[in-house]
Amino acid sequence: MPTARAYAIDSPTGRFHPATITRREPGPTEILFDIKFAGVCHSDIHTARGEWGPVNYPLVPGHELAGVVTQVGSQVTKYQVGDLVGVGCYVDSCGKCELCEGGQEQFCPEAIYTYADTGRDGLPTAGGYSTVFTVEADYALRIPSSIPLDKAAPLLCAGITTYAPLKRWGAGPGKRVAIVGMGGLGHMGVQIAAAMGADVAVISQTRSKQADGHRFGASEYYALNEPDTLKKLRRSFDLIVSTVAASDSDLDALLECLKINAAFVDVGLPEHPVTLKMQSLVGGNRILAGSQLAGVAETQEMLDFCAEHGLAAQVEVISADQINEAYDKVVKSQVRYRYVIDTATI
Amino acid sequence: MPTARAYAIDSPTGRFHPATITRREPGPTEILFDIKFAGVCHSDIHTARGEWGPVNYPLVPGHELAGVVTQVGSQVTKYQVGDLVGVGCYVDSCGKCELCEGGQEQFCPEAIYTYADTGRDGLPTAGGYSTVFTVEADYALRIPSSIPLDKAAPLLCAGITTYAPLKRWGAGPGKRVAIVGMGGLGHMGVQIAAAMGADVAVISQTRSKQADGHRFGASEYYALNEPDTLKKLRRSFDLIVSTVAASDSDLDALLECLKINAAFVDVGLPEHPVTLKMQSLVGGNRILAGSQLAGVAETQEMLDFCAEHGLAAQVEVISADQINEAYDKVVKSQVRYRYVIDTATI
Repeated sequence: MPTARAYAIDSPTGRFHPATITRREPGPTEILFDIKFAGVCHSDIHTARGEWGPVNYPLVPGHELAGVVTQVGSQVTKYQVGDLVGVGCYVDSCGKCELCEGGQEQFCPEAIYTYADTGRDGLPTAGGYSTVFTVEADYALRIPSSIPLDKAAPLLCAGITTYAPLKRWGAGPGKRVAIVGMGGLGHMGVQIAAAMGADVAVISQTRSKQADGHRFGASEYYALNEPDTLKKLRRSFDLIVSTVAASDSDLDALLECLKINAAFVDVGLPEHPVTLKMQSLVGGNRILAGSQLAGVAETQEMLDFCAEHGLAAQVEVISADQINEAYDKVVKSQVRYRYVIDTATI
Repeated sequence: MPTARAYAIDSPTGRFHPATITRREPGPTEILFDIKFAGVCHSDIHTARGEWGPVNYPLVPGHELAGVVTQVGSQVTKYQVGDLVGVGCYVDSCGKCELCEGGQEQFCPEAIYTYADTGRDGLPTAGGYSTVFTVEADYALRIPSSIPLDKAAPLLCAGITTYAPLKRWGAGPGKRVAIVGMGGLGHMGVQIAAAMGADVAVISQTRSKQADGHRFGASEYYALNEPDTLKKLRRSFDLIVSTVAASDSDLDALLECLKINAAFVDVGLPEHPVTLKMQSLVGGNRILAGSQLAGVAETQEMLDFCAEHGLAAQVEVISADQINEAYDKVVKSQVRYRYVIDTATI
């Protein structure tokens, strides 16, 4: 069985350390690939620190993998050795239910997540903070050659998480779209919404990232730490995509920034329940929606869209021994805009 | 100026009493009509009792009016004396903004509500607990002759409030639709959803109205006072329309009853903010939407739809001196399913 170097954590308060794990020998429909880069997502931190509930340790996080195929199963026709591939948040699903057939494998009851889950072999899944990965070919994504692998890795979560709601809810020419929060997800959301042709506004806590926001394609930038920001934006937007866990007091004010009939889509997962006045929705036929990832086909579509429009994540490449420090910086919003682990350093 | 008998209330804790009010002489684009029946909506009670904020007393509520035209302005071509007409929750709007032109007059910033508002003449508006009414012809609705006026009146609020979200969110053949609550609004929602061709389920507190539910067209009936009702309905519905102010503990469980991508539409206005776990939405690409009334054209469409399908409100006709008692019974959910005031008794 292929062995892989990895970085693992042993408890909610532990620190990442080098480890050796094994991957399964690729079956006839699977591929083996060398992970070159793995993104650090805020959800890795929530999971590793037990903030979303108990997990089995040792844990190897990472669901933004980009690498190069080194071995293909006998029945695999889609990939060849040397192809550039990525893996996102899930690695398998039943493939035959209504959701899988409808292209929403992420919600299949039998979906298997890339880490902190149990594989079909009954063993814990281990994620991308590692050097080698085995995956069903149908759940791998082809990374367009024009996107450097380090900048492509975050698209597998941050990219698709923002692309899917922007597409579903109609971001495009003539639409005024706000992205709330400009972190790992938000900085992709701004780029994608602008590339879709929408007029993009950023709603951030401060103006510290304003120059970047305009560079990513936003034409407007608003700071919540300035007086009456949201009050002035009442009934302004055709669509708001929130990448942050909005505080309760902001949520109603943000909903009021929607035009009549418009949608506010949340892609973040607050640790606590949120409170809102139903009147914020009822009094304008408004929509509060959630969105989580997308199916395999739409994820590929997003990668191709990014390649076509020259989009990629803005990353800071780190070595594996910087993961602990990187986690602290992500929590403090000090990353610009995604840490990506160079797996050669693992 | 035309005088009208009315029933008014003088304080949040007051009782309704007879009064005499004046209506304005109909202008060239207005009509005058004799109100024959006026529905009693739960929102009348919230307003009259000051539960939705301070109001100016004396107050004449009523936004479900049905009657017969007695006078038409010189420029009115749409109506003739003797025509059957209705008035719903609003009586005017600017007529030229994007919302008015888009058929959503109810959200026009200049919309004037049927009562507890201020008319263009600067005087307080007075509603349907009365005998005579003056209104712009363009804001009156034509009541199809096949619907008796007493059973038509509640359609102007209860009917359109449920019709609009059912239509917007795709109730129809092959869709499994749940209506939460079977009161004044819910009993119309069940009938309309069934007439649209959907498979309709009622989710009620108890089974006390089950026979009625099936008579109205529901094929399934669920009671929340039975164990694990919502747990068993997980991922079941293509659409849920809630006509009640769901308690916080129910809201997440109700959202989990939606299929992936499906919508829960609230048409009620809880007095207090609601709490929900964002995961209930995010973990299924789900939608929580609000809906409030509809524009004039869609309200007419709803009346015509009801006539075509033989739908009407199930009402208990009361005399004006029973309004106080009726309010108490509505609050206790003892009405089957809408009290309608016979204005001949005012």
